[in-house]
Amino acid sequence: MGVQIGVIGAGVCGEADKSLAKKVGREIAKRGGILVCGGLGGVMEAASQGAKEAGGSTLGLLPGTDKGEANPWIDIAVVTGLGHARNVLLAQTSEALIALDGEYGTLSEIALGLKLGKPVVQLESRWKIEGVKEAKNPEMAVEMAFSLIKANPKTYIQKRKNE
Amino acid sequence: MGVQIGVIGAGVCGEADKSLAKKVGREIAKRGGILVCGGLGGVMEAASQGAKEAGGSTLGLLPGTDKGEANPWIDIAVVTGLGHARNVLLAQTSEALIALDGEYGTLSEIALGLKLGKPVVQLESRWKIEGVKEAKNPEMAVEMAFSLIKANPKTYIQKRKNE
Amino acid sequence: MGVQIGVIGAGVCGEADKSLAKKVGREIAKRGGILVCGGLGGVMEAASQGAKEAGGSTLGLLPGTDKGEANPWIDIAVVTGLGHARNVLLAQTSEALIALDGEYGTLSEIALGLKLGKPVVQLESRWKIEGVKEAKNPEMAVEMAFSLIKANPKTYIQKRKNE
Amino acid sequence: MGVQIGVIGAGVCGEADKSLAKKVGREIAKRGGILVCGGLGGVMEAASQGAKEAGGSTLGLLPGTDKGEANPWIDIAVVTGLGHARNVLLAQTSEALIALDGEYGTLSEIALGLKLGKPVVQLESRWKIEGVKEAKNPEMAVEMAFSLIKANPKTYIQKRKNE
Repeated sequence: MGVQIGVIGAGVCGEADKSLAKKVGREIAKRGGILVCGGLGGVMEAASQGAKEAGGSTLGLLPGTDKGEANPWIDIAVVTGLGHARNVLLAQTSEALIALDGEYGTLSEIALGLKLGKPVVQLESRWKIEGVKEAKNPEMAVEMAFSLIKANPKTYIQKRKNE
Repeated sequence: MGVQIGVIGAGVCGEADKSLAKKVGREIAKRGGILVCGGLGGVMEAASQGAKEAGGSTLGLLPGTDKGEANPWIDIAVVTGLGHARNVLLAQTSEALIALDGEYGTLSEIALGLKLGKPVVQLESRWKIEGVKEAKNPEMAVEMAFSLIKANPKTYIQKRKNE
Repeated sequence: MGVQIGVIGAGVCGEADKSLAKKVGREIAKRGGILVCGGLGGVMEAASQGAKEAGGSTLGLLPGTDKGEANPWIDIAVVTGLGHARNVLLAQTSEALIALDGEYGTLSEIALGLKLGKPVVQLESRWKIEGVKEAKNPEMAVEMAFSLIKANPKTYIQKRKNE
Repeated sequence: MGVQIGVIGAGVCGEADKSLAKKVGREIAKRGGILVCGGLGGVMEAASQGAKEAGGSTLGLLPGTDKGEANPWIDIAVVTGLGHARNVLLAQTSEALIALDGEYGTLSEIALGLKLGKPVVQLESRWKIEGVKEAKNPEMAVEMAFSLIKANPKTYIQKRKNE
């Protein structure tokens, strides 16, 4: 099983963020990682495109009940029908999270990732949350994610704990 | 149907936080609100106790699959079995959220509440998140929650939106 | 905490089924039980009405994200946003299930209830599933549900088990 | 995106069922389908093995919160943490379901598949549910699943509907 890296960020974004997201997706693929995302547009779509163009695999965890809402770069779409609760599945399914600019939805995913003990790396994000690692560029963000997983190979084994 | 107010915060907490939470629960009950919480210990239990002692009703959204994990002040327990995804149900089910001190789980609930357009009032919390209203004491927190709901009576009607 | 009894059945139904559902709701309330249902129309609404008219309490586990979709007899609405996955919460939250006539959604709830080891009582239902108890009338259905819970007081304590 | 076919059945099973499941997985892979399953043992593991040995891809929707519970033939594991509610995701994510012998968990998945309008093909199963198609052998089951999807190319586009 490949290393599963989540990329999170706004569902609608500008060209600068798209370019960053595409590079993040590409780097994940080049290192043999599987890109996990919410399956929709903006940062999710750009990261998926980057991963596919570099020959990688992409998994989209869709919030709705229509497989057709997946962006065209998604290989496997999970039709969760859970709405925002799919954010929790994304944090659980990813062995590390890379956050680009996003709003409260992204913040919830950062918080859930940290709650679960996953490495969370941030790139050009507005949120300043204790425990998140800051990266200066996409290459560094992906490098950090893989290193942090390696340093803590058990991050993906989470036992259910009541809050 | 009564107004449903969510109280969020750490599952394990000190006496000072318990005292604040109990007062918050009491104020919610005195105004005829239904206390919604995660159903476990710490802030959740103290707020539930406060609400029951003032003659109110309490709803606990349990993360696990065992009804027996509810604290003794819960009237109705929903056995979600969803783990952290029950945080999303809590934010959706509450017409406003009152956050006491908590960690990343609480932060995820604050973020989800804001994402859903719910009023979020904070009391002695470590997080400084844009959009959250600060209250100086429990009475004020509950007063603010009810006023913000009244000012925006549609807050509880959320249409599903993709992120 | 009161005994939580789930009533399941079609969201759209005829007068005969409504009358049966209303009687089931009434009997649950008369015995001090809390009526748990999906919160919408048809069997769910009639059962809720019966419970409220007899002075009982009602809990609706709504599939969508709009509290306004609850029928007018619901006291407490949980806004799950989970779609059909709210059926699982209903089976977990109920200490016994009473099934009236319904289609595949109802069948899924019957199956989940049996999977979880909950008593499932059936009244005028089309499904013939091993393990379901048949009742001849609403009074008998509710009587059976309470007796089966009493005979097996641990039914509501379910430990998570992988399928 | 490949056609996503769900295979459901008992988590613990005998050699005869394992052999059938392996053949089902193999046929799905030979036709370019992606095998979707619950990711654990028994029928799920045998089907995953069959798909991988024929060069296919496998997706496991795990009920728990530990990625390590996936069987060794899973390519991509979604850590749902939803318990039995992951059955709903399985039915939504699959464009058709193939049911082997199983108990109440399998019955709930059959019911959910039918509720969602998905083709459900059954092989050696104990349940006799109206709307399920019976297949005589693994090759025929997979052939039927692909034909039924082709005959109804919209089956994978499900709009949220309240029950």
